[in-house]
Amino acid sequence: MNDSTFMAEALAEARRGHDEGGVPIGCVLVRDGEIVGAGHNRRVQRDSAILHAEMDALEATGRQPGAFYRDVTLYTTLSPCAMCTGAILLYGIPRVVIGEHESFMGEEDLLAERGVQVSVLNDHDCRTLMQRFMADKPSLWHEDIAEQDDAPASR
Amino acid sequence: MNDSTFMAEALAEARRGHDEGGVPIGCVLVRDGEIVGAGHNRRVQRDSAILHAEMDALEATGRQPGAFYRDVTLYTTLSPCAMCTGAILLYGIPRVVIGEHESFMGEEDLLAERGVQVSVLNDHDCRTLMQRFMADKPSLWHEDIAEQDDAPASR
Repeated sequence: MNDSTFMAEALAEARRGHDEGGVPIGCVLVRDGEIVGAGHNRRVQRDSAILHAEMDALEATGRQPGAFYRDVTLYTTLSPCAMCTGAILLYGIPRVVIGEHESFMGEEDLLAERGVQVSVLNDHDCRTLMQRFMADKPSLWHEDIAEQDDAPASR
Repeated sequence: MNDSTFMAEALAEARRGHDEGGVPIGCVLVRDGEIVGAGHNRRVQRDSAILHAEMDALEATGRQPGAFYRDVTLYTTLSPCAMCTGAILLYGIPRVVIGEHESFMGEEDLLAERGVQVSVLNDHDCRTLMQRFMADKPSLWHEDIAEQDDAPASR
C-alpha cells in the first residue's frame, strides 16, 4: 500500500459524502500500513459545524492515547482548513498527505512550521470532484469554510 | 451581562462535565449579549476525540453562515488547545475570553498573531476546578491533550 492507494480510499470517502448530498471531502488515518479511521465531511448529513472529513476520521478512530498518533499518517483529499490543521497539531500527527490544494489552500504553511511533513499529490480526481461541487453548491462550500458567498476561498 | 457573568456560565458547563465524570472544561458562545451555544468537554461521555468544550459549543450552535461568527465572543474556562484554536480561526471568531491559562497554556500566541482579541480573566474558580481534576485524573487529562503521561502539558 502506498500514498496513492490510501488517497484512493480517502477519495472513496469523499464520493460517499457527495452521494449523500454533502461536501465531498474524505480522509483516512493510516498506522502501520492499516487504515485505523476513515471519514468524510458531514456538515449536511449531521447538521454539523465541526465534522469536516479530518475531524470525522479522528472521531471514527476513537479515544486513543497520545502516543498512538505519533505513528499516524493522515490522508485528506483537500488541503486542511485551520480547524483540521489544529487537530493535526493537537494530536501530533507527523505526516499529512493532501490530494490537492488548488481548489482550496489550507494551513499547510502552519503545519510545515510546526514540523509536520506535508506532501501534496496534485490528484486529478480529487480536484475534479471538488471543483464540480464548488461550482454546483457555492453557498454550501462557503458555509463550510465560513466565507461570505462573494469572498475568495483561502483559509 | 459582562465577561464575568458569561465566564460563570462557561464554568457551570465545566462543572456539569465534572459531575458527569468528564474533563471539566466549559465554553459558551455569545452574540449580541446572548448565549447562542454552550458546551463542555465530552471525551469521556461520548467516547470522543474531538468534543473539547469549544467544539461542543460550536456544534451546539448548529450550522451558521460565516457572517454569524463575526459577532461572536467565545468564553472558555481554559486556554484553548491547537484544535479549538484552529476552529476559532476557521470561523473567524474575533474575541476569545479565557478563564485561566496557568493549568494549561494553549495557542494564545497564534490567536493573537491572527488578530483575535484574547483576554485572560485569571479566574480562581476555573483554576481550582481544573487543577483538582489534573491531580485526580492525570491520565485522562494527558489523553485529552495527547501528551504522554510523564510529559509536561503545553500545547
